[in-house]
Amino acid sequence: MTDQPLIRSLKEGETFTGYLLAQEAAFKVSSKGSEYLELKLSDASGDLKAFLWDVRAIEGDMDAVTADAFLKVKGAISSYNGRMQLRLDKVRFADDAEVGDLSRFFPVSKRPVPEMLAELDGWIASLADPFVRKLISALFVDDTELRAAFAKAPAAKSMHHVYLGGLLEHTLSILGMADRACGHYKDLNRDLVLAGVLLHDVGKTAELSYARSFGYTDIGNLLGHISMEAQWIQKAADSIPGFPDELRLQLVHIVLSHHGKLEFGSPVLPKTPEALIVHYLDDLDGKLEVMFRTIREEGGDSNWSAYNRTLERMIYKVRWPQAVNLAINGQNSSS
Amino acid sequence: MTDQPLIRSLKEGETFTGYLLAQEAAFKVSSKGSEYLELKLSDASGDLKAFLWDVRAIEGDMDAVTADAFLKVKGAISSYNGRMQLRLDKVRFADDAEVGDLSRFFPVSKRPVPEMLAELDGWIASLADPFVRKLISALFVDDTELRAAFAKAPAAKSMHHVYLGGLLEHTLSILGMADRACGHYKDLNRDLVLAGVLLHDVGKTAELSYARSFGYTDIGNLLGHISMEAQWIQKAADSIPGFPDELRLQLVHIVLSHHGKLEFGSPVLPKTPEALIVHYLDDLDGKLEVMFRTIREEGGDSNWSAYNRTLERMIYKVRWPQAVNLAINGQNSSS
Amino acid sequence: MTDQPLIRSLKEGETFTGYLLAQEAAFKVSSKGSEYLELKLSDASGDLKAFLWDVRAIEGDMDAVTADAFLKVKGAISSYNGRMQLRLDKVRFADDAEVGDLSRFFPVSKRPVPEMLAELDGWIASLADPFVRKLISALFVDDTELRAAFAKAPAAKSMHHVYLGGLLEHTLSILGMADRACGHYKDLNRDLVLAGVLLHDVGKTAELSYARSFGYTDIGNLLGHISMEAQWIQKAADSIPGFPDELRLQLVHIVLSHHGKLEFGSPVLPKTPEALIVHYLDDLDGKLEVMFRTIREEGGDSNWSAYNRTLERMIYKVRWPQAVNLAINGQNSSS
Amino acid sequence: MTDQPLIRSLKEGETFTGYLLAQEAAFKVSSKGSEYLELKLSDASGDLKAFLWDVRAIEGDMDAVTADAFLKVKGAISSYNGRMQLRLDKVRFADDAEVGDLSRFFPVSKRPVPEMLAELDGWIASLADPFVRKLISALFVDDTELRAAFAKAPAAKSMHHVYLGGLLEHTLSILGMADRACGHYKDLNRDLVLAGVLLHDVGKTAELSYARSFGYTDIGNLLGHISMEAQWIQKAADSIPGFPDELRLQLVHIVLSHHGKLEFGSPVLPKTPEALIVHYLDDLDGKLEVMFRTIREEGGDSNWSAYNRTLERMIYKVRWPQAVNLAINGQNSSS
Amino acid sequence: MTDQPLIRSLKEGETFTGYLLAQEAAFKVSSKGSEYLELKLSDASGDLKAFLWDVRAIEGDMDAVTADAFLKVKGAISSYNGRMQLRLDKVRFADDAEVGDLSRFFPVSKRPVPEMLAELDGWIASLADPFVRKLISALFVDDTELRAAFAKAPAAKSMHHVYLGGLLEHTLSILGMADRACGHYKDLNRDLVLAGVLLHDVGKTAELSYARSFGYTDIGNLLGHISMEAQWIQKAADSIPGFPDELRLQLVHIVLSHHGKLEFGSPVLPKTPEALIVHYLDDLDGKLEVMFRTIREEGGDSNWSAYNRTLERMIYKVRWPQAVNLAINGQNSSS
Amino acid sequence: MTDQPLIRSLKEGETFTGYLLAQEAAFKVSSKGSEYLELKLSDASGDLKAFLWDVRAIEGDMDAVTADAFLKVKGAISSYNGRMQLRLDKVRFADDAEVGDLSRFFPVSKRPVPEMLAELDGWIASLADPFVRKLISALFVDDTELRAAFAKAPAAKSMHHVYLGGLLEHTLSILGMADRACGHYKDLNRDLVLAGVLLHDVGKTAELSYARSFGYTDIGNLLGHISMEAQWIQKAADSIPGFPDELRLQLVHIVLSHHGKLEFGSPVLPKTPEALIVHYLDDLDGKLEVMFRTIREEGGDSNWSAYNRTLERMIYKVRWPQAVNLAINGQNSSS
Repeated sequence: MTDQPLIRSLKEGETFTGYLLAQEAAFKVSSKGSEYLELKLSDASGDLKAFLWDVRAIEGDMDAVTADAFLKVKGAISSYNGRMQLRLDKVRFADDAEVGDLSRFFPVSKRPVPEMLAELDGWIASLADPFVRKLISALFVDDTELRAAFAKAPAAKSMHHVYLGGLLEHTLSILGMADRACGHYKDLNRDLVLAGVLLHDVGKTAELSYARSFGYTDIGNLLGHISMEAQWIQKAADSIPGFPDELRLQLVHIVLSHHGKLEFGSPVLPKTPEALIVHYLDDLDGKLEVMFRTIREEGGDSNWSAYNRTLERMIYKVRWPQAVNLAINGQNSSS
Repeated sequence: MTDQPLIRSLKEGETFTGYLLAQEAAFKVSSKGSEYLELKLSDASGDLKAFLWDVRAIEGDMDAVTADAFLKVKGAISSYNGRMQLRLDKVRFADDAEVGDLSRFFPVSKRPVPEMLAELDGWIASLADPFVRKLISALFVDDTELRAAFAKAPAAKSMHHVYLGGLLEHTLSILGMADRACGHYKDLNRDLVLAGVLLHDVGKTAELSYARSFGYTDIGNLLGHISMEAQWIQKAADSIPGFPDELRLQLVHIVLSHHGKLEFGSPVLPKTPEALIVHYLDDLDGKLEVMFRTIREEGGDSNWSAYNRTLERMIYKVRWPQAVNLAINGQNSSS
Repeated sequence: MTDQPLIRSLKEGETFTGYLLAQEAAFKVSSKGSEYLELKLSDASGDLKAFLWDVRAIEGDMDAVTADAFLKVKGAISSYNGRMQLRLDKVRFADDAEVGDLSRFFPVSKRPVPEMLAELDGWIASLADPFVRKLISALFVDDTELRAAFAKAPAAKSMHHVYLGGLLEHTLSILGMADRACGHYKDLNRDLVLAGVLLHDVGKTAELSYARSFGYTDIGNLLGHISMEAQWIQKAADSIPGFPDELRLQLVHIVLSHHGKLEFGSPVLPKTPEALIVHYLDDLDGKLEVMFRTIREEGGDSNWSAYNRTLERMIYKVRWPQAVNLAINGQNSSS
Repeated sequence: MTDQPLIRSLKEGETFTGYLLAQEAAFKVSSKGSEYLELKLSDASGDLKAFLWDVRAIEGDMDAVTADAFLKVKGAISSYNGRMQLRLDKVRFADDAEVGDLSRFFPVSKRPVPEMLAELDGWIASLADPFVRKLISALFVDDTELRAAFAKAPAAKSMHHVYLGGLLEHTLSILGMADRACGHYKDLNRDLVLAGVLLHDVGKTAELSYARSFGYTDIGNLLGHISMEAQWIQKAADSIPGFPDELRLQLVHIVLSHHGKLEFGSPVLPKTPEALIVHYLDDLDGKLEVMFRTIREEGGDSNWSAYNRTLERMIYKVRWPQAVNLAINGQNSSS
Repeated sequence: MTDQPLIRSLKEGETFTGYLLAQEAAFKVSSKGSEYLELKLSDASGDLKAFLWDVRAIEGDMDAVTADAFLKVKGAISSYNGRMQLRLDKVRFADDAEVGDLSRFFPVSKRPVPEMLAELDGWIASLADPFVRKLISALFVDDTELRAAFAKAPAAKSMHHVYLGGLLEHTLSILGMADRACGHYKDLNRDLVLAGVLLHDVGKTAELSYARSFGYTDIGNLLGHISMEAQWIQKAADSIPGFPDELRLQLVHIVLSHHGKLEFGSPVLPKTPEALIVHYLDDLDGKLEVMFRTIREEGGDSNWSAYNRTLERMIYKVRWPQAVNLAINGQNSSS
Repeated sequence: MTDQPLIRSLKEGETFTGYLLAQEAAFKVSSKGSEYLELKLSDASGDLKAFLWDVRAIEGDMDAVTADAFLKVKGAISSYNGRMQLRLDKVRFADDAEVGDLSRFFPVSKRPVPEMLAELDGWIASLADPFVRKLISALFVDDTELRAAFAKAPAAKSMHHVYLGGLLEHTLSILGMADRACGHYKDLNRDLVLAGVLLHDVGKTAELSYARSFGYTDIGNLLGHISMEAQWIQKAADSIPGFPDELRLQLVHIVLSHHGKLEFGSPVLPKTPEALIVHYLDDLDGKLEVMFRTIREEGGDSNWSAYNRTLERMIYKVRWPQAVNLAINGQNSSS
């Protein structure tokens, strides 16, 4: 699909031929009693509605035209009430091999993956405790399959950082904040905190499916990412000669307890300072991301966002401007 | 009481004469049917049990010998099972004027108050937004009575930072962390966040009574510190010409919402990023202080603290040592 | 719009020209691929569906034809399945100045406002405590802007008394009941109770927007009516020389605690008998209004109302008849 | 026990001989290794501690000297720290027949029972609906055993109105308030409301045991008062020819739903206006009684009561004085 | 309707004439502005969508064509996207008398009713305690009306066993399991347990309406099945001379407490072993039925069911095969 | 301690010399101001109070005389108010080696361990699925250390089956019931259910400490038994060639979800029928054990047990007698 235009760039009157991912697909009956096909089609740049008024124009297996399928479509762009639509002439199912690079159909992190991986390696190099560094390296560097998955997975199915690379981006954001927190609360063991942050959601690589639409895998639904992470840490620690039991215990505890409450799926409460702060910083980072993205992306004149189901509230979008120019002598001590 | 020894320094066999605060006072009946007085007496350095076996040795009003009263006592130190006790010869009620500097009977922050006030003024000076700085100065600098109370109050009646100066110490700790957080999350309005932190618990100066034992004032019980803070901000903003309505709204919102949930006494949920982070950092700082203090102060051989009612769990006291010496090349990026 | 007919009076076959408020507005695509406009239009007497099959017939700015806008429309009344519909020929946006008296488009209390204001003044005159009466008069009589708003606001956005004048009507109903309650529970301080009732929801005049559709203002969403009321009382009390601190404390406490539970947005629980009864009578009055209105207005043959989201249950609409005729000697002692 | 003095009237130095109810009884070992008996003894006027230093002075069966037993005791009154105590010389178990009128050992309502029963009959006579009046009369007038129990039972085991006659007193208080409520909310069916109030707790006569200390009967613990009331109403209605099904349904519904929530033991929610208001007025009356009694009876200088477990809060005991003298022209419309 | 074909057997191109139950009925407006009728029609074998494009083809009262009505319809079967539809030519309301045997329009238990009743009688005959057997016989054998209703009612309105005969089937399933449980836990009183199971939901015969669509009766909504069962047991026990009070108490307790928690509508908690196990087995049987039915009936390729509102989760539909063939020597001890 | 008498067999006037476990140890001050030692001492047969009036009679390290220590004591049995007491002459700390077989100081299951292990092996042999049997054998047969621990551990720290061997006894009881349940619900996979029951609490061998008093291990507090079990299953499955992924998934899911709710520490809800029933039968067995043991062991005349904290209710102890003799023809089908 290298040369097909992005949805975001389409203009009224143009024709479009190419592959798109069907987010929704429904066969409906018109008032004349005839059947038509209504689709919501997407690529990484956005989505649009599409209509095929004569279902006989579907080529190949009609039953394959479903949500989550890639479709080869041909049609003309029209505009209704300011939004683009596709009036289709042809539709057919397309298999993955034909489509090529699937990742181009999904939302992705704004930060380039190589840059994020380099930052990840910097954090790993900064770990002072040799056993902690070995354990983390075993999982995030040596296990290339896991490293690749960690670089690609979203941070959640819905809620926050819901895009490819979101898990890595979310982890890096917490690492930066955690490093600052360890600079402030000097009694925290920085190695435990950073390792805890790195490990806390790595199981989402197996819990979530994100090759196509985002969802849960069977293992994700039946075991959850937390218990998988615990198992992975135990296995990695088993493979490192002399790995201290106490360290293993504290690391697994951080991971098991990082949801902060039993009713959120942690089988134990955080009982060490490091476990407590990993929970808080994870929770905070996810919620702030939701707030800032909502403020940035949700259009309209209203001072308020729509009701946000993740935060269970509306967000106030009015920003009080940062007073950098006004403060001549006030020096911002943040760095 | 300048020349009386501290409780912590008393040794078996010594006699003690001086003023002590009665934490508990109970008249009990012995198995012989005679009445005796059992006391728990304290100064800033600690407390000990004391017994007066003949209640006729009480001088003056016997009914004045109650919990929360200062007593002039005389007796001898003995040791039972490793703990010091006072076997009293004389006990009488003492009024405040006689006792002198009451603060010497209470736990106090380890940080000197002048040092903390200087740090406070540094933070205020760093505020870039002129209206924010004016409002904060009006309350924390110009209102000398409030400033004095803010420097003296504990942060809570129980829970965390329960000592004179605790409110200021807690506020400064969050300020430091908040400043770092604003360095990390660049979209946060640092002035709003820092002002929110400064204001979030200032009403505790009126909510709590701490001249003697720590408790709630009538106004604290009937109105709560949150609604008092909202009123104080409104009043201070009224007195600053041209204070922007939007800024006032956002500041009051941060304060009203900083408990994070309605069931914790906030009448509204945090609906701006600044309100959200003030809530998280406040909550985190209080809980970390409890954890670290428990680990530091709770003695015994056990790996576990006693059940902690504030955190509703036991704390694991085993600390994994910081690996500073081991890490030759790993540079801790915290500052 | 003085001479345009009310929606409730429209009949099949008539034409209609006039201003209506758009409750809903949606551009849809027909099965033929053409766009049409579907509206829900209302005045104070009711609402009806309207269709414009050719969107080119919209005059002026098409984007201004949205929910919450006033529209000038022209069309013919038809009837489908017993309900009136408008088939439109023309539609255009109309600004408020052109429309005139907006209140004619909203549901209003059945009780005339002047009658209700007179009743309000009677209650104020009955207050025995001079400071209470001064405070109440300052807010409800002397502050003419607040008085006007208090006479116009609804009692809630949804839930109960959702119509112009609803706040005043709800307040008067509780006052009547509260007065009887004070007659029964003689230890209640009637002045505190009545003042508490008058003040408990007065902040809704600022919390709610009701010039057009009913909603929350920014200040309502960010601060809530309870904290505004507390501030208003404090300000009014400040302006009355010699206003007793104790009285102020008790009044503000009643207002802050009147939702009865922290999770319902009261930062403190009712801790005086007066605060307790104001909470109960407020809660009861709102729920009874919902029940009686549902029984009165919800049509259909069923013995049961639809599921009521405010009360989280269905209401049993069957009424057991009052036995006034049967009871020859039984004298109803109610008055 | 007609001529024995009341506990409240005892003075230091007097001797006492008579019957008292043992609220608590414990055999303890003194520091000398000898066993003694410690008692808490009560009559209707109060209680006091008592000690028997030589347990060999117990006459008869030592195992019968337990809590909830009546004891014949002889001893001398002494005073320790302002409180009266009994130093006993003799103790023996006493059976009920010997003790005589047991009710003199329990707290009782301040209102005379005959006066309350007369008021009850007045309310019954005021019922206009003949079937309602018949049903109520069958239970509260014709069933003399139930009537006697209704006049004697407390309203609860703890919580509120915990004294003999408390159930009747509580019921009458709600009746008075309910009558006023029906005068205010004219759409309420007064007969249903009053009958609901009369019936709502009548099952407590069987749920509670109150011949001695207050507790639950087996049937009370296993079935609860609500289901017993439902059964009694059904049985009484069965015995009245032509009793309307609809009326029976509405009455049983009021009784079943009067706790207001499933988690408080009502198997259904109030779904009629009458059921709703019976729930509110019952709940309010119990809570107000607790508040007023606490304010009246709880001594001490504090502005605050002790923590009240029923209301889950402390009560503010400061009363703002009723301004009857100040209000020359303000006429209290309560009656 | 004896000779009309079942919905499940209809094929494309056939015509259909007969009676069907309208599950849903909606008059809609097409894009051409004309009104049409959209129906969901059902018999015991399933349901299908139906469209009448010209509403003038409705015979008789158009307002009678509503959900829950029987309709006489004529039309042709067509197939869209693999599902059958009815394009109607004629529609008219049909009253019950005309329709005949209504039960043929509802889902029914797969087990024949006579077989289930025989099994029921077997369980009753197995009761060893004569009073228990008399009580159960009085209700389930001698009261032929109740026996007939018990054989016909569904077990719930939604949730589980939602079909005619479902109550009996559910009860028999628990009886079988309860009998095995009594074989395992020997201290259980089998007669109490089995009687408790038989009685626990018998009130659903009066709580639910199931002559047409499944719903609640007025008495069901206002009193609930639990309180009706309690009353029925009391009445039946009253009619058996010498019925022991203790036995009556324990039986009523089992029934009242069988929902296990107050918030699920039981006014008391299970306080005997027999009450506890009846609650568990009832709860388990309902939930297992939902799981197995979902796995059996919910089609599609997914390993997961749709979100199930009764269980508040999705069900994993993959079954690990029973290893009967593999186990040569392993003898299944189940019987 | 082979020849020392059991506590239960001690009689007044006897002397006792031997080892006992100190459940509680407190140094107290008598009314004469002298210090004495109060102990609660136990062996497997029960416990009793003991007093040492002269603390100088303690031999060796006084600080070693604490709760949870074994003590060598010598003293005389006396009786106060029907209970035995020890008046001690000598007390000294005793280390474990000296004491010998520690298990004789703890409560143990009434069933002999060899008999229970034989029953366990029978259940394992009955597993039909070869992979399930291999996995279970690897853990419960081949791992002799785990097998020994499984035979010794209690089922809980408090709550239910709190005695040595309790875990095995509880597991066997559920197995018996589960086998019957699989006979009733034929669609259940018996091998999955039985394996789930065997595995569900095996991690308690590591979660609990029971060498002395019962408590939690560090790993138990930090990780919980559920996550340890998941890890053990994964490790055992890894070691079995060709172990099917699907089977592993379903088994781990049963174990992770067996607490039934997130707030009870299960990170996922039961999503298969086998997981659901393992949860129910585990929960039921524990609660029934508590009920039956309470009824059996709690003495006194009352029909009611004391308030039971595990079940959050009192238990009704009156048993309705099993009617075995009365039922001549009624054949109990239980087996």
